Amino acid sequence: MSDQPNGAQALIRTLVDSGVDVCFTNPGTSEMHFVAALDDVPEMRGILGLFEGVVTGAADGYARMAGKPAGTLLHLGPGLGNGLANLHNASRARTPMVNIIGDHATYHKRYDAPLESDIDSIAKGAPGWFRRSMSPDAVALDAAEAVAAAMSAPGQVATLVLPADTCWLPAPGGAAAPVAPTMATAVDEGDIDAVAKLLRSGASCTLLIGGRAVGEQGTRAAARIAEATGAKLLTETFPARQRRGAGILSVERVIYLAEFAQMQLAGTEHLILVDASAPVSFFAYPEKPSTLWPEDCDIVSLAAGPSDPVRALEDLADALSAAPVSGPERVSLDRPSGSLDAMSLAAAVAATMPDNAIVVDEANTGGIDLGRATAACSPHDWLYLTGGSIGIGLPLATGAAVAAPDRRVVSVQADGSAMYTFQALWTMARENLDITIVILNNGRYAVLDMELDRVGADGGGPRARSMFDLTGPDLDFVALAAGMGVEGVRVETAEDLTTHLDRAHVTPGPQLIEAVIPPLQT
Amino acid sequence: MSDQPNGAQALIRTLVDSGVDVCFTNPGTSEMHFVAALDDVPEMRGILGLFEGVVTGAADGYARMAGKPAGTLLHLGPGLGNGLANLHNASRARTPMVNIIGDHATYHKRYDAPLESDIDSIAKGAPGWFRRSMSPDAVALDAAEAVAAAMSAPGQVATLVLPADTCWLPAPGGAAAPVAPTMATAVDEGDIDAVAKLLRSGASCTLLIGGRAVGEQGTRAAARIAEATGAKLLTETFPARQRRGAGILSVERVIYLAEFAQMQLAGTEHLILVDASAPVSFFAYPEKPSTLWPEDCDIVSLAAGPSDPVRALEDLADALSAAPVSGPERVSLDRPSGSLDAMSLAAAVAATMPDNAIVVDEANTGGIDLGRATAACSPHDWLYLTGGSIGIGLPLATGAAVAAPDRRVVSVQADGSAMYTFQALWTMARENLDITIVILNNGRYAVLDMELDRVGADGGGPRARSMFDLTGPDLDFVALAAGMGVEGVRVETAEDLTTHLDRAHVTPGPQLIEAVIPPLQT
Repeated sequence: MSDQPNGAQALIRTLVDSGVDVCFTNPGTSEMHFVAALDDVPEMRGILGLFEGVVTGAADGYARMAGKPAGTLLHLGPGLGNGLANLHNASRARTPMVNIIGDHATYHKRYDAPLESDIDSIAKGAPGWFRRSMSPDAVALDAAEAVAAAMSAPGQVATLVLPADTCWLPAPGGAAAPVAPTMATAVDEGDIDAVAKLLRSGASCTLLIGGRAVGEQGTRAAARIAEATGAKLLTETFPARQRRGAGILSVERVIYLAEFAQMQLAGTEHLILVDASAPVSFFAYPEKPSTLWPEDCDIVSLAAGPSDPVRALEDLADALSAAPVSGPERVSLDRPSGSLDAMSLAAAVAATMPDNAIVVDEANTGGIDLGRATAACSPHDWLYLTGGSIGIGLPLATGAAVAAPDRRVVSVQADGSAMYTFQALWTMARENLDITIVILNNGRYAVLDMELDRVGADGGGPRARSMFDLTGPDLDFVALAAGMGVEGVRVETAEDLTTHLDRAHVTPGPQLIEAVIPPLQT
Repeated sequence: MSDQPNGAQALIRTLVDSGVDVCFTNPGTSEMHFVAALDDVPEMRGILGLFEGVVTGAADGYARMAGKPAGTLLHLGPGLGNGLANLHNASRARTPMVNIIGDHATYHKRYDAPLESDIDSIAKGAPGWFRRSMSPDAVALDAAEAVAAAMSAPGQVATLVLPADTCWLPAPGGAAAPVAPTMATAVDEGDIDAVAKLLRSGASCTLLIGGRAVGEQGTRAAARIAEATGAKLLTETFPARQRRGAGILSVERVIYLAEFAQMQLAGTEHLILVDASAPVSFFAYPEKPSTLWPEDCDIVSLAAGPSDPVRALEDLADALSAAPVSGPERVSLDRPSGSLDAMSLAAAVAATMPDNAIVVDEANTGGIDLGRATAACSPHDWLYLTGGSIGIGLPLATGAAVAAPDRRVVSVQADGSAMYTFQALWTMARENLDITIVILNNGRYAVLDMELDRVGADGGGPRARSMFDLTGPDLDFVALAAGMGVEGVRVETAEDLTTHLDRAHVTPGPQLIEAVIPPLQT
């Protein structure tokens, strides 16, 4: 770097000094000085994605596993738009992330050039911290504060818009020192005691944990509480990262289908939330309620927002004098045989699960048995689709693999959702990431068959159902993978799937297995 | 349809009655009643896209060729986000379009379910008409007004947000009658005369036409004016749809590179705009001006917004007593041979151009010679990337082919941009659309090599340049196409390209040709 850095150089140096040393990029002209500065600050690793949805989903997966933000580099409003669906998911996951969005130079915006757009409004699609730098002198401190905002409890998406001239003009002040994030706070002893009293009261209690509470430490403490008091233990439906498996506990999730979730919660008198929201139906349905807890159920939030849910669970377990609980023992799983369906597929994934794997789950209907089948597998982390916006799985797997190069990522991926951000495979190949991708090819948006029935839509006939049909032409995922330099194989039996999973898990780099399964019958 | 339609049925019936009978869809649960109603209103053709960027870009291409809107069906805020980049382009093109965006039921929004987001803010990323229906009784009239807004001069993107309950509840009023759009108005005679006087004054004039003025009728009138007065004639850089070729005139466009555009406009004393904006630099560059006209140039806007630019040009030509001009004669073009580069590629496209083709141009750097090479081809329509947001080409070609089933679409497509919305190929195959796709595979974001130089970014070394590198792994577009049921072939010589273009143009359905070319040297 020259004696007098420009804004972009000061920015990247600040990011690196603040601990952000990976940036997923899809740049354009307004980001050229940022890109140029990659040669000045070699500690920053730039990872190219061929589409912005890959970039933002990868940054989410990275942060979920690294516990710190990655950067993203996006090109004006349209680049932000392309990345927005996975930013929505990240925002829902409260993933720490620092988005750098290039914009036209400050003095150029008034001319309404073709790429001018209302970035500030678009960014409201993924709530979090937002700032627009207005001078090269401001960029470094803005970046440090963006990182601090992202890392402040409970975590959030931080977005910094940088007009091009703030990056190319001199920034004599250079890099800014890291800014300390706001740390999580302890829950008051009185609140802990009040919840302990409820749990001891003999009333029917459900402990619903989510967010940061579903890691290993939180799960172990929650298991102690449940064991000691008889409370029912559940996690939110789609946690950002759940630690589970043998020796820990694979806590049951609130079921996606509202009808079943209501059954899980039936009889609950006190619903105790720990870093989780009160469960509501994913969508509204005619004549069905939006809220899933019993009408006369009392809801208590023990830890939310900036308070520390893990410590709250441990304090609560201690207050209850709850003994440690050993999770279930690891069991040896049978290798499935015969035809492939959701059951045998789940059995194959379970039987071949690598030690300490990271499972990225966008399996949708084809994955209904995965949770049960893998409950007693070697301990692993499980990453979910947090915000309901499909197309997260392959990008999330990409970022997770960057963050955890010593672990195998198992990406269990529905076909329809895969097609939103399939470009992620190219980045997997380029970065030689150790990812096993299992595509569940059932040739349909099968969840929509189910939803069409559930919403009670009259008259859904062949023309409606044709909107869920992914055949004619069939998608050939092995060919698609080959187009991006990823090896693939298509399997139609449980034996073949199991064999190829075993092989893929120990093969460096990405490996794709297209598993042909029937659509779920509804 | 039953005696008492629901909101969705009333909506689709209204759209069809208003002339909107094609809807590009990527639905989710909140749109299930719309989908179900496709069986009740069979006049509405639903066309599925595997990603929302395909859906919105296809609706743009459809409207550019059909002269009337298509609908889109998008799933909440993330679906809108995924479609936003091409909505930005459509908004810049002033394309008539009716976006239907499903949202949570009105009463469900307060629960902040996982897919809840700020749709209204996101929609500001593509300015136009916007409304949120609040009751099933309102849906039909809202839809009729959306179509009218989209069709009102000069055309715009209209977005209608429909909470799910407005679609599933009864709408006893049924469909709404079509609402008349606001028609274009005539330019005052006095304004015409004032411009005629300028053109006759002997001062150096440039006539810059854009938008609706670059169709055949407008172009012919503009050619008369230029011929009679000696004015320089240009079109905006990226018109939505330009009619050009032998017998008409292939009007030169303002060049994308600001340095060259300034040369084109040098010496202009009066710049006369007809449905075009005063030309500004696409991006700002250090030490370079934002505006491209000479400092002392006077700017006159003859027709803009709701006024009728074609009639204004014809009135102006008549006021000048300008004689009809015959365009250039069609010439027989040599078939190129030897190695492939931007020049021989353009020659091959020109030599094989089908009669009355629709050319969709997202060729970027590899396409620099296309305009010159095809100027005397059989008359054709040329669709450009209007808003600078890449990933429009393949969707645009899809929609154009739906609108014009009797014409061949020639999609000339850069590799990097193709990867944003490559899912369009699946829709092309599913709908058996007559599209010849020529992928220009130069293995780079070559425009960024140029832009990195142009912004004067210091220090852009190998790490920066690696962010533009699309090799390692190479993209194999023939494999990608096969993955979506489209036949493809890879060519490396001008002879092979020409031969395969000839063959592809007469083969029903989509045909892909991957042309390997070197990156443009800058």
